[in-house]
Amino acid sequence: MSESNLNSFVPVTAVAKKIANSKLVQETRNLFFYQLQHQKDKDSFADYVIIVRTKALNKLSGLEKEAHKTKLEETCRKVLTRLNLAGLKFEVRRGAEDLIFIFVLCPLKRLKEEVDRSRVNDWLVGVRIRDIDDDSSGSDPTLTDAERLRLVHDIITNPRQENGAGINPGLEDFELVECFLPLHDRNYNEDWIKTWSTKWIIDKNDLLLLRNHFGEKIAYYFAFLQYYCEWLIIPSIAGLLTYFFSENYSITFGLFIVLWSIIFTEFWRRKEYELAVWWGVRNFSRVEKRRAGFREESKIISHITGELVPYFSPWKRWLRRAFAAPIIIIFSLTLSLALLFYILFEVIMSEYYTGPFRNQLIYLPTITYCALVPALNVIYIQIAKKLNEYENYETESSYEFNLTQKIFVANFLIGYLSIFFIGWVYIPFNEEIGYFFQSFFDLFGLSFTIKNVGSERLVTELKYFILTAQIMSLFMELILPYLLRFGTFGVKKIQKNETKDGSKNEDESAFLKRVRREVKLPVYDVYEDYVEMISQYGYVSLFSVIWPLTPVFALINNWIELRSDAIKLCEHTRRPIPSRADSIGPWLDNLSLLTWLSSITNPSIIYLYHPDTKGFTSSSGVIFTIVLVWFSEHIFGVVRYIVQQMLAAFPTATDALVQKEEYELKKRWLEKAGVSTVSPSDSDLQEKKEDSKWFQNDDRIEDLEDVLREILRELKEE
Amino acid sequence: MSESNLNSFVPVTAVAKKIANSKLVQETRNLFFYQLQHQKDKDSFADYVIIVRTKALNKLSGLEKEAHKTKLEETCRKVLTRLNLAGLKFEVRRGAEDLIFIFVLCPLKRLKEEVDRSRVNDWLVGVRIRDIDDDSSGSDPTLTDAERLRLVHDIITNPRQENGAGINPGLEDFELVECFLPLHDRNYNEDWIKTWSTKWIIDKNDLLLLRNHFGEKIAYYFAFLQYYCEWLIIPSIAGLLTYFFSENYSITFGLFIVLWSIIFTEFWRRKEYELAVWWGVRNFSRVEKRRAGFREESKIISHITGELVPYFSPWKRWLRRAFAAPIIIIFSLTLSLALLFYILFEVIMSEYYTGPFRNQLIYLPTITYCALVPALNVIYIQIAKKLNEYENYETESSYEFNLTQKIFVANFLIGYLSIFFIGWVYIPFNEEIGYFFQSFFDLFGLSFTIKNVGSERLVTELKYFILTAQIMSLFMELILPYLLRFGTFGVKKIQKNETKDGSKNEDESAFLKRVRREVKLPVYDVYEDYVEMISQYGYVSLFSVIWPLTPVFALINNWIELRSDAIKLCEHTRRPIPSRADSIGPWLDNLSLLTWLSSITNPSIIYLYHPDTKGFTSSSGVIFTIVLVWFSEHIFGVVRYIVQQMLAAFPTATDALVQKEEYELKKRWLEKAGVSTVSPSDSDLQEKKEDSKWFQNDDRIEDLEDVLREILRELKEE
Repeated sequence: MSESNLNSFVPVTAVAKKIANSKLVQETRNLFFYQLQHQKDKDSFADYVIIVRTKALNKLSGLEKEAHKTKLEETCRKVLTRLNLAGLKFEVRRGAEDLIFIFVLCPLKRLKEEVDRSRVNDWLVGVRIRDIDDDSSGSDPTLTDAERLRLVHDIITNPRQENGAGINPGLEDFELVECFLPLHDRNYNEDWIKTWSTKWIIDKNDLLLLRNHFGEKIAYYFAFLQYYCEWLIIPSIAGLLTYFFSENYSITFGLFIVLWSIIFTEFWRRKEYELAVWWGVRNFSRVEKRRAGFREESKIISHITGELVPYFSPWKRWLRRAFAAPIIIIFSLTLSLALLFYILFEVIMSEYYTGPFRNQLIYLPTITYCALVPALNVIYIQIAKKLNEYENYETESSYEFNLTQKIFVANFLIGYLSIFFIGWVYIPFNEEIGYFFQSFFDLFGLSFTIKNVGSERLVTELKYFILTAQIMSLFMELILPYLLRFGTFGVKKIQKNETKDGSKNEDESAFLKRVRREVKLPVYDVYEDYVEMISQYGYVSLFSVIWPLTPVFALINNWIELRSDAIKLCEHTRRPIPSRADSIGPWLDNLSLLTWLSSITNPSIIYLYHPDTKGFTSSSGVIFTIVLVWFSEHIFGVVRYIVQQMLAAFPTATDALVQKEEYELKKRWLEKAGVSTVSPSDSDLQEKKEDSKWFQNDDRIEDLEDVLREILRELKEE
Repeated sequence: MSESNLNSFVPVTAVAKKIANSKLVQETRNLFFYQLQHQKDKDSFADYVIIVRTKALNKLSGLEKEAHKTKLEETCRKVLTRLNLAGLKFEVRRGAEDLIFIFVLCPLKRLKEEVDRSRVNDWLVGVRIRDIDDDSSGSDPTLTDAERLRLVHDIITNPRQENGAGINPGLEDFELVECFLPLHDRNYNEDWIKTWSTKWIIDKNDLLLLRNHFGEKIAYYFAFLQYYCEWLIIPSIAGLLTYFFSENYSITFGLFIVLWSIIFTEFWRRKEYELAVWWGVRNFSRVEKRRAGFREESKIISHITGELVPYFSPWKRWLRRAFAAPIIIIFSLTLSLALLFYILFEVIMSEYYTGPFRNQLIYLPTITYCALVPALNVIYIQIAKKLNEYENYETESSYEFNLTQKIFVANFLIGYLSIFFIGWVYIPFNEEIGYFFQSFFDLFGLSFTIKNVGSERLVTELKYFILTAQIMSLFMELILPYLLRFGTFGVKKIQKNETKDGSKNEDESAFLKRVRREVKLPVYDVYEDYVEMISQYGYVSLFSVIWPLTPVFALINNWIELRSDAIKLCEHTRRPIPSRADSIGPWLDNLSLLTWLSSITNPSIIYLYHPDTKGFTSSSGVIFTIVLVWFSEHIFGVVRYIVQQMLAAFPTATDALVQKEEYELKKRWLEKAGVSTVSPSDSDLQEKKEDSKWFQNDDRIEDLEDVLREILRELKEE
């Protein structure tokens, strides 16, 4: 785009004409211009787009319409007033029939203020170690995209008392504000996808670039995925060897997998910490601010600051948790029952039932499943969200932690229950179940055949989850969105031409069109991606002894997933608002939990299915399995303790980095405090010279020598 | 003591005469005088007494004698030179035939320097939160006795590079230096014992006084003992109720005890942290210095400071640990076998054997035990110390942690193995064991009676440990030292008169006599005291379901123990060198371990012995016990998790304190950094006024109102 074109970029709509010559527009245009010149990207017109959504006016009655319009005007005015008070620049545009776009840009001066404030704050609580006015290490690290967006987001959402605009979408006065949307940086996205898809291994620097652009929270997911992917190589090789050269249900492979799981989990814990240091987010949770959705019970005078602060009694939260827990448990049981019903139904239809319409009825379980389970899951998620909201957590991370743990219960059941049922109940008690259903079917006079099911059924089930489910999910994530969008675009084509966006300028129009497109995309939810990976880790660590190729296919899937998730993030979702994180949070706990479970599943699977034991054929099998599991769990505990201790004994390079920065700070401060850190000169340390010097004061030498000599003489006399 | 007396306090021995008028003595006398005036205690002549021990000269050959004398002279000179270089004052006296006393006193100026250095250091690493130059909270807390002694000890032991004297008893050039001895403060000790023995409950301030005098490490022991003692009231009441009103092996009481153990452990963890904050030792481990006994493998250039630092490869340490572990295990097994042998032997003699000499032979097991087990234990401790030294830990606390854990294994076996054996093997398999021994005895033609042993045997065993053992230990700790000292004093009386102490002045002579007496006392080892308490906690949490009066007697014992330990510390041991601690360290882990074990013992005892189940009579009892234990352990894990989470939800008053100090520091710093923390004035926050103000610049208002109105108008038209 040439500069003349840029200068001609003046809104020329009916509205715009009027204000084209006013100061504000001049200023804003300069602002845009500045951005265009510096970012070399014609799309970066704003840091954020605040989306205000109006109701469909034609569906409202007269009175409602008026009320809504008044509310809309009030909201918009309030947003603009607040943004102005917070020192931000903005432009308003009609986005679509039901959308108003408020483009927000943070002037450099205001941004610098916020950067300073935030860095001082970080330094004080130990997130940042390097001294604020320490310029010894060169210039300040440049402000990354992610930090800029995070800080601007802070300015918009921070309460007025902290010089923010205090705008929180969907809350109180801002009910009509839908969200804040940072716009995708197309150049970055193209580069990203290009780099990653042409590289075998994603390295440290790739992740740093990602973190600089999307923030630590997103970067942690990709870092974890990459790390996990690398670590999968080891069990993949072991799996291949076992598959081709060893017996089924190999004890060695089982032990190996449990050990691998322990070591991987502990190494990731270490890696995670290293990343936190490297990315400068260690201890970040100490500066985490209050969640916007937090509802205070009352305001109390803080013992700490002496100011009025919102307060919610922890007792009350625990009461609410105690109230929520049974609901979660009941719902998990319902879900479990539904799943068990499906599994049994499927088993009956595919294995036992030989009556009429068999060929048609065989699809019935799958249909029931598709109709029932996703619906139940959606309901469950809704309930979990409500309960979590009700429990009223104070910070975003504690809110997220508890929500994740609640929802993960459902994912856990859907992902593993059928394998547990088939492996530990259905196959071991195959005959008993067969007889039970025979008598049941006989009651209704339906024809029935008892079929003996062996361990191959378990392998089939696992293969389904590893192969079919992974391909399905890839399709759902990557290809379906294209198809869906193509579909809706086709339908909406006619409407689109009518869209009034208050701009007939080509560039502006193209830009607004792009914003509209991005608004239509779903929000990126890192939860979905984590749950997929952690579930897969579960298959590898819990069940790969059943089918040793599991890690191999997981490895292949993850290699693709790493790239396809990048495409998904760029193409199929809105750009996420960057936020900090110093860990993968609840997922680390889930990782540990699954690792612990692997110490239960592996020995029991091997005991039940190994050709030499065939544990499930004897009647005391159940008891012996528990005894075995008891020992296995304790051995697991000991091994994990040793691994943890060993890792703790080896400081990482990052530890040295932290210590070095702390040491330098310490030195500077000791100097400032007037305490000398200069070591005594070498000559002082020379013991030989000491002897000849004795004391500085000559008188004293004589005296002391005398006392000493006298004592020694006495001793010698003895 | 009158002042004239003080002035007459001049050494008048042959040696002293010569130097009486020299500068040094004048100065030193002033120093003594200063101390006498300020501390109002004629005994506080010195901060430390450095004890140099000579070998018994008359037992050495001529050459050895000379060599030893030379070495002795070198050592003394080196000590004095170093002390002088470090800025300390000192006096030398002949202590006894084989002792040289070097009295060390730290001048106020030097002490102040060290206090500053240490406090700046503490502040930098976060042990101390309050800003160094923050005088808002009044004057600096006064220097406590404990801190003074700790810092002087630091000066003496710190390497020359850090302006210390670099004297480490028993190491390198200081092989003949036996130890540093701080002298007891008699006034304090008298007050302490008087206060505690006339008080029912030891409160926070009593503990603070204790910490101020003896340092945090000792204070933590007494704090734990007091806290544990208070908490014992709850199970004592429950125990009494159960004993008198409930059946034996009550399920309710068992559950209650496990729950109590969990809650107590977690509350102590919290209390411990509170104390650490209150005593100002939080995070103290970050400033812990290198252990004097640490042997470097090589010197490497530190990545952190760029200086040469001693280095020992963690790999090597792990190799050494891997080498030590089997030795520990083999020795534990030996000890276990010895213990089992004793138990079986005792059982056979008391229950089965009816042959000749029964009345005499019945004491044989106890004699064997007394001869064998303490000896084995002493050997074990020696081996453990050697191994621990070999593992070469870098800090005192990691050294102590690992040593404690090694030695605790033996204490655990001696304390609990017999109960485990009787409860889980001997009684359940009573008949089988009986038959086995019958056939064995028949072989030798000895007469033998099979007696059925019931659960009362278990109660007897537990009662022995709770009653007999506790009374024994009290006797050993408190009364035996008096007797022993009386004995040795009697014997040494003649020798004593001959003691040459280079002082015929009455005061000095009395003082030196006292020092000699204190040198003769054993070193106070807090390990012994902890092990007693933690073992007792084990009886309460693991076994009190067998005999519900266990907590009652533990409570009574501890109430006395708390006072008797005070007497022991004052009268029967040397004054310990104060050191910092921010936890009871390894004992907390042992506490957790015993709590976890209680979730195994309680259900299995109840299952095996409850009148309704009598688990051990059925053949599948063993298996079922394991299954029960398996479930119990998992329930335990969940309950503990919930308790931990609940506690974490409630911030303590101390947390508020820390946060408050951090907040104040933060505020000060934000101000220093020039970032305003002043909230926007109230008028800014008035939403109503905002509306009327809109923007400061009038032009802009018009413009924006126009854009907004246009958009709203368009919307209205729809």
